[in-house]
Amino acid sequence: MDKEICFKPIGIIHSPYRRPEDAPRRPRSFPAAKATVKVFTRYRAGMRDLQGFSHVLLVYHLHLSRRGNLVCRPFLDPKRRRGVFATRSPRRPNPIGISVVRLLKVRRDGLEVSHVDMVDGSPLLDIKPYIPETGPRERVKLGWLEKELRKLEADRDD
Amino acid sequence: MDKEICFKPIGIIHSPYRRPEDAPRRPRSFPAAKATVKVFTRYRAGMRDLQGFSHVLLVYHLHLSRRGNLVCRPFLDPKRRRGVFATRSPRRPNPIGISVVRLLKVRRDGLEVSHVDMVDGSPLLDIKPYIPETGPRERVKLGWLEKELRKLEADRDD
Repeated sequence: MDKEICFKPIGIIHSPYRRPEDAPRRPRSFPAAKATVKVFTRYRAGMRDLQGFSHVLLVYHLHLSRRGNLVCRPFLDPKRRRGVFATRSPRRPNPIGISVVRLLKVRRDGLEVSHVDMVDGSPLLDIKPYIPETGPRERVKLGWLEKELRKLEADRDD
Repeated sequence: MDKEICFKPIGIIHSPYRRPEDAPRRPRSFPAAKATVKVFTRYRAGMRDLQGFSHVLLVYHLHLSRRGNLVCRPFLDPKRRRGVFATRSPRRPNPIGISVVRLLKVRRDGLEVSHVDMVDGSPLLDIKPYIPETGPRERVKLGWLEKELRKLEADRDD
């Protein structure tokens, strides 16, 4: 039950962000942030049919994040400590990052994407098609985040 | 670069599906499918503040899936082989499952959720808040899946 589960990177993500603190908090507002996803040779056959998708989900290792924090101060409301599973903080027991990115180009050796927030050198674990149809139909409630996101919306100028 | 990345389960998911082939393909149409997410004692402090979220993202190990397939026959169109990264097939190089589930109750020792599609005993790797606001604003294109999902919508009676 407590056994480790191990994965092998299928590629590596080259992004403009060198440190976690350089990455944008709202990547969908940063179309200029482009990344190159390099897929290792032996996994490239799996990229077939990605053409035609406008967005993909990248699953990767948050390799620069320290583990173990169960409570954290989220950037949206740093005055209060929150349970880490109620935040998107990269410092979590299992540092697995999930990002929806825009697919610009499928190349022989990988992908060109934009709207990214991962740091340079992130080991890629999986690519999945992004399918909003699989999301919930009901109204989504966002707990403590709801108020903070509303403030953000009111402030933003993009 | 090719080094293994290892994670420790933070809990275990108890669901009504014993085998991968028992799980629904469109879990949002199966509200009755409920699961209990048991979070191991030492990670429970991280569940604070999950109250108030209507949905969460569960990240888990697809522990009954065999690895390694780079092309597969997706259930939506089994006549054609597709690159695995352009499908949501559980048989992928790194069998990491990601599901949006409805959060029914936060308990002392875990969560009660519905609309599930994972099999019983899946090792839980992470819980993240589900925030549709972080998704793309542009129209989403779904490649080969677009036609198949349209057919499905036309057929469904729910």
